[in-house]
This record gives sequence, C-alpha cells and structure tokens, in this order.
Amino acid sequence: MPLGVFDSGIGGLTVVRALRIAFPKRDILYVGDTARVPYGNKSAETVLQYSREIVDFLGKKGAERIVVACNTASALAVEALAPSCMLPLHGMIESGVTAALGAGEGPVGVIGTAATIASGAYPKALAKARPGLRVVARATPLFVPLVEEGWLDGEVTEKVVRHYLEPLQREKIRVLVLACTHYPLLKGVIGRVLGPDVKLVDSSEACAGSLQATESGRLEKGELKIFLTDEPGAFLGRVESFLGKGAVASMERVHLPHS
Amino acid sequence: MPLGVFDSGIGGLTVVRALRIAFPKRDILYVGDTARVPYGNKSAETVLQYSREIVDFLGKKGAERIVVACNTASALAVEALAPSCMLPLHGMIESGVTAALGAGEGPVGVIGTAATIASGAYPKALAKARPGLRVVARATPLFVPLVEEGWLDGEVTEKVVRHYLEPLQREKIRVLVLACTHYPLLKGVIGRVLGPDVKLVDSSEACAGSLQATESGRLEKGELKIFLTDEPGAFLGRVESFLGKGAVASMERVHLPHS
Repeated sequence: MPLGVFDSGIGGLTVVRALRIAFPKRDILYVGDTARVPYGNKSAETVLQYSREIVDFLGKKGAERIVVACNTASALAVEALAPSCMLPLHGMIESGVTAALGAGEGPVGVIGTAATIASGAYPKALAKARPGLRVVARATPLFVPLVEEGWLDGEVTEKVVRHYLEPLQREKIRVLVLACTHYPLLKGVIGRVLGPDVKLVDSSEACAGSLQATESGRLEKGELKIFLTDEPGAFLGRVESFLGKGAVASMERVHLPHS
Repeated sequence: MPLGVFDSGIGGLTVVRALRIAFPKRDILYVGDTARVPYGNKSAETVLQYSREIVDFLGKKGAERIVVACNTASALAVEALAPSCMLPLHGMIESGVTAALGAGEGPVGVIGTAATIASGAYPKALAKARPGLRVVARATPLFVPLVEEGWLDGEVTEKVVRHYLEPLQREKIRVLVLACTHYPLLKGVIGRVLGPDVKLVDSSEACAGSLQATESGRLEKGELKIFLTDEPGAFLGRVESFLGKGAVASMERVHLPHS
C-alpha cells in the first residue's frame, strides 16, 4: 500500500526524496496544493480545512498512512485531524524535536513560516520533551520567496539570513531546526552565518528518518505519483530541484472539493 | 448601488483608497481572497476560476460594476470573464496603458508578478495602442514578499530593486508601470534607483482615475465593506497600511464555493 505525502506546494518533495531512499519499493502518492500555496501566512482554520481535504483525497486513493510533509500543516492541523483520521498521520514536529534534542546540547533555535512560529508548536513540544530547555523561535518569511526565486546564496540572501538569525545568535543557540521544507536549500549560507558550532536540523530528513524506524525491511523501486491542485506545467522544472535529478514522476492535476 | 472591487489579497485596497477619494459617497464592497493569495504564481486557469467565484459573489451582493483591483487577475481573467459577465468589468491593464502613454515619451518598462508578465498583457496592449513602442517587461517576484514583510526601504530592498531594474535601465526606459498593487509602497526606493528622468505609473491610481472619468458628480461618505476568504483577524493591522489611517471598514469572512 502506498504512502500518502502532502505539502502546501512542492517543497514537501524534499521529504519524498528522503522517503524514496528509505523506502525504495513503496509507492508514494504526493499532493502539492499549488493552487492555494502558501499555507505559511494563513489562519489555522483555513490550513486545517485544506489539510482535511487532502487527507480525504489520499485516503480515497488508498494511502496506508499519511506523512504531513509541511511544517505549517503539521503545526496547525495534525493535532486537530488525528482523532477523526482513519489512517496513521505523521507530522514533522515530533521527529524535528527528537532530532534537535539528539543533535547537541544548549539552546535550540527554530525558524519557520509566520504561521508555524505563531502556533508555538515547536517550543511547546521541545519544552515537553526537555523541560527548562531554552528555545528561541523566529519567523523568517523571506526565506521561501528567496528559495523560490532561486537565490540560494549571494549578497542579498546572506544579508537576509544575517538579519533573521541575529537574535538567535545573541541567545547562543547550539542547534537550529529548519522547520520549513524550503529551508534546507539555504543550508549553505545559514551554516556559514552561524558557524560550525551550531548544528542544523533538517526537518525533512528527520521526518523521513523517524518513519523508517517504524517499518521493517528494504525493498525495491516504488512508483511516485504527484498530484497538484494547480496546472502542473509550470512546476515540471522545479520538481527536479526538490526531488533530485532523474526522479521519474507522473504528474497530474487534481481538483479537491475547494481547490 | 455599490462598486464591487476585488484582489487576491489586501493589496487592492490601494485601489479602494483612490476610489474612496474619487467616489466619496459610493458604497464599496471589497473581496480579498486571502485564503488563496497570492495569484501571481498560479496558472491562468486557476486565476480565472477564483476570479469567476468572486465576480459571482459580488454580483449577488448587488454590485453595480466590478473593478478588478489585481493586475494578475486583470491580465489573466478579465478578457475571458467579460463576455459572460452581466456587470461592467474594469481591469487594470487598459487604464495602466493609458496612464503610461500619457506619462512621457520613450521606452516603457513594466514590472509585475510572474503570471502578469508571462501573460504578455501589458506589452500587447501597449503595442496595440502605440505600434512600434519599445516595451521591456520583467517579473519582480521578491517585491511582494518584501512589502508584506514591511521592508519598504533599506539596503536589502534597494539591492533587490537594483537587481531587477538593471535590464530596464539598460534599455533606457522613460516610464515604468508598477503593475502590481503592492509596488507603489516601494515607490521611494524605485524612484531613487531610476532617478527623476523615469516617470512611475501607479496602476492603482490609474485604475481609480479612469473609472472616475466614467461617472458624474461628487457625493458624500460611502460605506466600505471588506470580505476576506481567510480569517480577518491577522489582517486588521495591515488593512490600514493599504487604506490609510482612520478608514472605517467592516470586515467579515466569506466562504466562496472553493475557498
């Protein structure tokens, strides 16, 4: 039975990439809500409604479990959806927290979309797992547009990164959770700005890794089917930048009840 | 009878602001599609579908005519919607073109969202109005995120502006159409970068001004009703930055068929 994966757009394909390596024979059904992307500046109610529609769609398509490969949807919708969801639902918060606590000692920084940070989901989960831990969370809303524009490095990007991370450096963080699927693409410049003493936690890798631990055995090549709520045409080129070269993927448009 | 106005988000309130000055007694119904914002990176088909839902909603609410206060929807949807629309439909392209041609001689630059520029709507309309005119169009996708983050000036914003406008300066443009409702908020830095020889055309003012010419008489204070497709809470503060201080507005959430 296939794994169901979804994100507000195509950023969640970084999780798919890690899942394909971890589960080479599992078929994966991916939904990118490109008609309504982004989720990061929307209300919890709206993100919950959109997430519910996608979970229903993936359930009907036969998904065996669902990976919410979107930090915003994980922070705003997973807790509310889980009780009524018939399938196991894996968000990114828990695995991100586990990876952060395993990465090093000292204060932890968290960066994400405005909605993810406003939810307080990461600080709450970190405080629960390790009471008294110092956590500094900050929304970095220009990171996604910079990645989408392909400005993964350079003077402007470095200045924006320095601006956002300055308060985290002042708090002497030792671990930084990249709590948005786009942010690993800025790892180079973030690492340079923070220096080697701060460990970066990629929430996509952490999520895929945590799921691996719940399955047994390695299999062979599975199929990847991508469903997008907007016309797929414009995304063909960009899918490869998230998935890696040579990833064979069928892409089709899907109309959700409200997309 | 009220004027209906819509935009993908709250940027179209810059048009409302100009309309309120031009038509002080007209009631205005404004729809901001904040649950699905932005339109600028979406397909023509999706933008058309969303625009149709809003036009239907405004028609049912009694709008007498509809102003499409969004350059992307104007470029991608107005032509397709007009034949079946029972109400007069005013897009931003025609008025922007008229204002650009009236602003000065020489090559014209156009900046807008990826979808607006990809549509070619402005160059086509400019070429039709003045055959042989040199037009340079460029998408400037980081401008909206910069405005939304409130970075209206400063080193990063100036560097981004310089980067995008450099090819337009090389073509020695004499007029620049700011073909997105957010861009007038960057007028200061754009004007400084381009210098006094390049006239800036604010498409919001041009749109409101063109509509004024079709109506007669000045009246008194009309009402402004704002409908947003996402929770209005988060937008209360930002509405004032677009509308100007002291604008009294009722805000409520509306669910469109697919929002």
